[in-house]
Amino acid sequence: MPQPESIASPQRVDIRLGDRSYPILIGAGLLGDPSQFDAVPAAASALIVTNTTVSPIYAEALQKTLAGRFRTIHVLELPDGEAHKDWPTLNLVFDALLQQGSDRKTVLFALGGGVVGDMTGFAAASYMRGVPFVQVPTTLLAQVDSSVGGKTAINHPLGKNMIGAFYQPQLVLCDLATLATLPARELSAGLAEVIKYGPIYDMAFFDWIEANIDALMARDPAALAHAVRRSCEIKAEVVGQDERETGLRAILNFGHTFGHAIESGLGYGEWLHGEAVGCGMVMAAQLSQRLGGVDAAFVQRLTTLVERAGLPTVAPKLGAERYLELMRVDKKSEAGEIRFVLIDKPGSAVMRPAPDALVREVLAHCGGA
Amino acid sequence: MPQPESIASPQRVDIRLGDRSYPILIGAGLLGDPSQFDAVPAAASALIVTNTTVSPIYAEALQKTLAGRFRTIHVLELPDGEAHKDWPTLNLVFDALLQQGSDRKTVLFALGGGVVGDMTGFAAASYMRGVPFVQVPTTLLAQVDSSVGGKTAINHPLGKNMIGAFYQPQLVLCDLATLATLPARELSAGLAEVIKYGPIYDMAFFDWIEANIDALMARDPAALAHAVRRSCEIKAEVVGQDERETGLRAILNFGHTFGHAIESGLGYGEWLHGEAVGCGMVMAAQLSQRLGGVDAAFVQRLTTLVERAGLPTVAPKLGAERYLELMRVDKKSEAGEIRFVLIDKPGSAVMRPAPDALVREVLAHCGGA
Repeated sequence: MPQPESIASPQRVDIRLGDRSYPILIGAGLLGDPSQFDAVPAAASALIVTNTTVSPIYAEALQKTLAGRFRTIHVLELPDGEAHKDWPTLNLVFDALLQQGSDRKTVLFALGGGVVGDMTGFAAASYMRGVPFVQVPTTLLAQVDSSVGGKTAINHPLGKNMIGAFYQPQLVLCDLATLATLPARELSAGLAEVIKYGPIYDMAFFDWIEANIDALMARDPAALAHAVRRSCEIKAEVVGQDERETGLRAILNFGHTFGHAIESGLGYGEWLHGEAVGCGMVMAAQLSQRLGGVDAAFVQRLTTLVERAGLPTVAPKLGAERYLELMRVDKKSEAGEIRFVLIDKPGSAVMRPAPDALVREVLAHCGGA
Repeated sequence: MPQPESIASPQRVDIRLGDRSYPILIGAGLLGDPSQFDAVPAAASALIVTNTTVSPIYAEALQKTLAGRFRTIHVLELPDGEAHKDWPTLNLVFDALLQQGSDRKTVLFALGGGVVGDMTGFAAASYMRGVPFVQVPTTLLAQVDSSVGGKTAINHPLGKNMIGAFYQPQLVLCDLATLATLPARELSAGLAEVIKYGPIYDMAFFDWIEANIDALMARDPAALAHAVRRSCEIKAEVVGQDERETGLRAILNFGHTFGHAIESGLGYGEWLHGEAVGCGMVMAAQLSQRLGGVDAAFVQRLTTLVERAGLPTVAPKLGAERYLELMRVDKKSEAGEIRFVLIDKPGSAVMRPAPDALVREVLAHCGGA
């Protein structure tokens, strides 16, 4: 990697949302190939939003690739990490756009992981009430999940992703070559969201992940390519049916109710989002078992896979009351009642409330209480 | 006023936008009638967002009217005025929503003028990526323009309404009785947006406004009712054709390019938005005349009407360069070229650039240079 052959014929997955449809392109080396950006609307100017970690590796290359499309291309580096997914950092994007005389056609490029993608997307949704943007995810987590489907947001001190918009990009470009430079911890975090698609939607994919977890951890290009592609296919199917999460889409939050509480309770950035989701899936599976959806063998299987992906399966000890308090501000809650995404049978998920007593049991069992 | 008869049968204008359609109800005393809120979706909780000026007059009444619909109804008072249409003030809404355990179904009510409506709308668009909201405009400006059509925004130090969303309310409820408590300066500001609809769309309405300007200034209930209704009808027709301002809708910005420069250049809140628009329309008419769209008699007619509405027609002396600089960050600009809404013939507007030399002439003529 990069592999020139795969540039010639990237994999393509389509998000079908009527006039908000767009392609996801998947392949090694795409970031350096100008022809991969043909779906991007014409404009005088572009802004590449990235972070201090990713910028030195890829910003210049992307700027060069886009040079033929825009008269001016600026690069804005944000501080790295979930702790900066907040209003003051978002406002740096607005400052840059206004200082550079950007207009309603200016195209934003999100070059980085989930935090950069979420913030750039929300900036694009809000600047002049909406400008076009492109996702160029450079982490596994962003390629398999956060860059796809139009969820954008920033955090509020009282809750994760509480301020945002559903706003679709014009194109998602997953350059698999960028995964080669990913820190090991980020690779594992991404695998959490890959694993997620199994229990909620596709047990055949879960079997495949189990059989290939060592290859994925070793960054085998073919294994990563399949994991990204199948993950995007599943996400595309779900989002295509329920863009604004009025029902089905909520299943993609498997592990996220517990996970968000961990992230928020420890302070954003202490655990990576994917790490919290990994542990959160184990907790949600425990809760599913207590409600009769899956058996102990399934919970053990998931727990083992999460561990093999290098992810934590023991929850931080925040105390049961704090977990419950944090989970009550989850976006899925209604009238103060926490609603969990639970596995009702392997490969199928539902959203439902659970008795506090059972949640406490799970928290005690997993180390959180 | 309030007139009980009109509660029984408010005027209704429909905004037709497919699954985002909603009614505008217009009548005296509506705010006190629970049955007028039947279009509001059911939820456990509601938040009335208002300001320190409007709250003491109407918040309790609205809370009482809504009492049967929600288990809890909180009231949040924001500081009054355009100077506070910014992020820190918007964040007070998010703080309140999160502190009160609001969920995805919580309904926001914007009780106040354009600033409250714009901020509450953007808060509703962004909180948990979108919750329902209702506009209860209590100023003439908000009733005839800003509460209708889903434009929401906050200001950025470098430009007005630069950060926002197109996000439609569930209902707009124009209680004409609230106009009785409006300060004279606010009444005039609202008349600017009423007058606007004439030159760009409906010269018969312009004739009517000319004939009834004294009645409007005297707050004659029948005159105000007609002005609000006809304004909403025109806005509904325009927005129904072009929700996201890709073309036609831009004509509603007649007078706003000069006007926003005045507001921003003087500091938000120095002139009311409607005052800046009043003067801006005179300037845009002057520019239209220089480009052959209207004759001197038309410009004089508009100028006289703006004056009779109690609005300024002499621009603040910011200097031509400053005006040009401020107008270049207007949302209608493209690649640094200012685009004006100009009258190509009375009752019809177009958006187009204009030579800087002509703009300077207008600025000199109107006192701005």
